[in-house]
Order: sequence, then structure tokens, then C-alpha cells
Amino acid sequence: MKKATFYHAGCPVCVDAEKMMLDHLDTSKVDLEIVHFGEESARISEAENAGVESVPALVLDGQVYHINYGASMEEVKSG
Amino acid sequence: MKKATFYHAGCPVCVDAEKMMLDHLDTSKVDLEIVHFGEESARISEAENAGVESVPALVLDGQVYHINYGASMEEVKSG
Repeated sequence: MKKATFYHAGCPVCVDAEKMMLDHLDTSKVDLEIVHFGEESARISEAENAGVESVPALVLDGQVYHINYGASMEEVKSG
Repeated sequence: MKKATFYHAGCPVCVDAEKMMLDHLDTSKVDLEIVHFGEESARISEAENAGVESVPALVLDGQVYHINYGASMEEVKSG
């Protein structure tokens, strides 16, 4: 089982991509954790260290997949 | 079963995103077709009509998910 983390900030683009992932990833292969920066701002640095530059983004196997564009990490940090 | 189409142009970013999709999408829910524009250039207009602006991109349920950025459709068209 691979661990994947989906980072988002609640924006419409984020919510749409989150639903796509939740509905279509193979849960027998991927253990998907959802991190909403509005609720877990302490994890912003973790995401940046992983290479996340904008939200929504999926980190899987150490690789970052930016899925469409909701907001930059700078915008996320400035609230 | 939902039909999804992954459009790409063979670039490294495309190939990496293609592998992520092939390995982790739930094949009991998604019937994934891979379209490589280098082999199927006739389908470029189909992708553009669906809203694809760059590759790699996944079209699922009429929604376009641009996954990272490999090349613009203009670059794809100019070969």
C-alpha cells in the first residue's frame, strides 16, 4: 500500500480535484490522506518540502502532481 | 464504468503522469484510454474541444485535469 497525500485549500478547483481522486484512485493500492491547509496550516512546510508549489496537489511516491491550478502556496500562506 | 482519456505527447512529465495514472486509477471504475499525440495527431482537435490546454491531461466525466506541465497544445501542434 502506497501512501499518498492530497493537499488543498478548499478552493473550487481543489474540491473538484479532491473528489476526482477520492472517487477514482484504487484504494487497494493507495492510502489517500487529505490535508486541508485551512485546518492544518502546520503542514504547509511539509508540503513545500515535498515540492508542492500550488494547490491542489497530490504527493505520491515522493513525486508531486499539481492538478490544475487553484492557488499558489504564497496565496495559501497569506490566508 | 466511466471513460477517461489521458492525452500526452511523450515528454518526460507526460510519461511520469501516465504511469501514475495507469498504476493507481481504479480500473473497476475507470476505463482509461491513453492517447499519444505523436501517434494520433488527428485527435488533437478532440482534446482541444474538451478543454485540454497542455499535456499531460486527463479528461474524465467531461472535466479536464491538467497534471503538471509538459507542453502547451500549441507546442504539440507545431510538433
